[in-house]
Amino acid sequence: MSRYWSAVVHGLTPYVPGEQPQIANLVKLNTNEHPYGPSPLALAAMRAAADEGLRLYPDPNAAALKAALAQRHGLLPEQVFVGNGSDEVLAHAFMALLKHERPLWLPDISYSFYPVYCRLYGLSACTIALRPDFSLAPDDYLPHPGGERAGAIIFANPNAPTGRLLALDGVERIVAGNPDAVVLVDEAYIDFGGQSAAELVPKYPNLLVVQTFSKSRALAGLRVGYALGQAPLIEALERVKNSFNSYPLGRLALAGALASVADEAHFGANCQRVIDTRAWLNDQLEALGFEVLPSAANFVFARHPAHRGADLAAALRQRAVLVRHFAAPRIDAFLRITVGTPEQCAALVAALTEVVERVAVQPT
Amino acid sequence: MSRYWSAVVHGLTPYVPGEQPQIANLVKLNTNEHPYGPSPLALAAMRAAADEGLRLYPDPNAAALKAALAQRHGLLPEQVFVGNGSDEVLAHAFMALLKHERPLWLPDISYSFYPVYCRLYGLSACTIALRPDFSLAPDDYLPHPGGERAGAIIFANPNAPTGRLLALDGVERIVAGNPDAVVLVDEAYIDFGGQSAAELVPKYPNLLVVQTFSKSRALAGLRVGYALGQAPLIEALERVKNSFNSYPLGRLALAGALASVADEAHFGANCQRVIDTRAWLNDQLEALGFEVLPSAANFVFARHPAHRGADLAAALRQRAVLVRHFAAPRIDAFLRITVGTPEQCAALVAALTEVVERVAVQPT
Repeated sequence: MSRYWSAVVHGLTPYVPGEQPQIANLVKLNTNEHPYGPSPLALAAMRAAADEGLRLYPDPNAAALKAALAQRHGLLPEQVFVGNGSDEVLAHAFMALLKHERPLWLPDISYSFYPVYCRLYGLSACTIALRPDFSLAPDDYLPHPGGERAGAIIFANPNAPTGRLLALDGVERIVAGNPDAVVLVDEAYIDFGGQSAAELVPKYPNLLVVQTFSKSRALAGLRVGYALGQAPLIEALERVKNSFNSYPLGRLALAGALASVADEAHFGANCQRVIDTRAWLNDQLEALGFEVLPSAANFVFARHPAHRGADLAAALRQRAVLVRHFAAPRIDAFLRITVGTPEQCAALVAALTEVVERVAVQPT
Repeated sequence: MSRYWSAVVHGLTPYVPGEQPQIANLVKLNTNEHPYGPSPLALAAMRAAADEGLRLYPDPNAAALKAALAQRHGLLPEQVFVGNGSDEVLAHAFMALLKHERPLWLPDISYSFYPVYCRLYGLSACTIALRPDFSLAPDDYLPHPGGERAGAIIFANPNAPTGRLLALDGVERIVAGNPDAVVLVDEAYIDFGGQSAAELVPKYPNLLVVQTFSKSRALAGLRVGYALGQAPLIEALERVKNSFNSYPLGRLALAGALASVADEAHFGANCQRVIDTRAWLNDQLEALGFEVLPSAANFVFARHPAHRGADLAAALRQRAVLVRHFAAPRIDAFLRITVGTPEQCAALVAALTEVVERVAVQPT
């Protein structure tokens, strides 16, 4: 607290990211990073960009990257917005497109940064409970018969931290059913098993799709994210961005991201490796007695009937295995476990086996 | 315009950065970039960071970089905030520390991004005219005898786009005279001839000093800026930052910036080269009949009694020399010319000579 703070600062409850500890030999499965590296072409492009000269400002409009992303998604460059990770893209979207007199509708269990943005920009929000199986019911997001409508809608698909996917027809039902409200679909994890709503962009002026280079493109350390939508939505984001920071993406980020998009083969193969490991991990966890939600992401969300989530996370941590636990209603029993390499997943399973069996034989 | 835009978007007038055109053999003196490259140690550190793995998120707290900057400025790590260029740092400061019921006081001629931030975050502002010689009078920023006080104060020192420096005792007079208001001193250009107010941070709880790696450290393409202030001011910035984007600085930016701070010799030598060239350029422009404001920055601000600023800028552009012209009250006659290499400056002077003399002999 300080008398120098503006009014908004007092009311903030910042987002807490997963830890990035400096512990040797850690099995780090807590922040959904990709287990394999980015495209070697991306690394080469960044080296070349560094040699070319970092003394000059980057292109404030990121024209080359926007063109490449537009081409990949079958859209136009003016339908693409890029930012410093999808978190920055989301922040601008909250300010530019999701803040209206009517409240923002979002699932009760979702990316925990969303309520933080609401407090930052003073949005009123209305949370809608996921079904008991943690799936999202599209009909819950349609205007109510009594006339109640959303000011805007946001959800993650696949959802975080559950990993559950809403099929594209369900997404379209929400978008089509709310023509007066922006529907933001946060597809941070879409490349690990879902069908993107990007193809619906030409059809719906109220759809904004957000993706990131941090997960499927293995570039979490570079900070690049983007949004796809019709030109008026993108223009709103550009107006806020150009009133905030002309150059959120440096020359290395622009060069690395551009080369990553060009290397479709590396991208597809490494996503598939994660998908394969996820199936194996799923089976192993079920064999240990876990209930595992069906995941279309690069993580699984699992709970054990006989163990508290916080206890399991702590026991794993003692064994140098880091997973994420959320002390939040309805999901307190769960662990969110990133799909790592087969070796990392095997280490996790070995540690969990020890914990589950050791605790199971203790007298209660 | 779109019905999907939030109310704030309609009122925005985004900042327009200097052009980054792709023209061969351009003499680019329009965006105050450093003519010499960054420290080779910074480039080596970035290469190593890329090889180490961009698949992992960076340290969200940027602890190593904060420690290095703290040490360099004789401060504590909790007195340092880092962001994606000083523009992002400024944006967060406008929201977290400069927005109060009383208006923000700022010079009428200053960095043209400041009014843009005011519109973005709904700050009321009160502009104070610089003296006729474009110097800043500290007494104009003290509470008025009638009781009128600032909600907060911001100014650039050296000022942009004038280049004029306010000596440190003048800065201290403003800070000491406004104990209830945050005073933000934007020192983007301080390393080219000014004395930083950073040394006053331990003495004044209301002082925030902002610096950047884009100018004196020749890393405009990397996007790193920072703020120095007592812990409560820094905490306000952290709260906003952590409600906006956990990781504004990627791994390459963190590694490059850290190595740049360590290479004091490269930094000092290359700043001095710019200072030397500035003196030469100053003399050449005066010989051509220009009035040149005394500059402590890596640019000069100059006007010619017989030529319009816009005409000169256009004529230079035809000769592949880019400078910056602001179509704004009081400074419309001026050109802002970045101090480049001696060769670039000589090319500018040659082009200007041609323009000034050719036009001078034309019948009026």
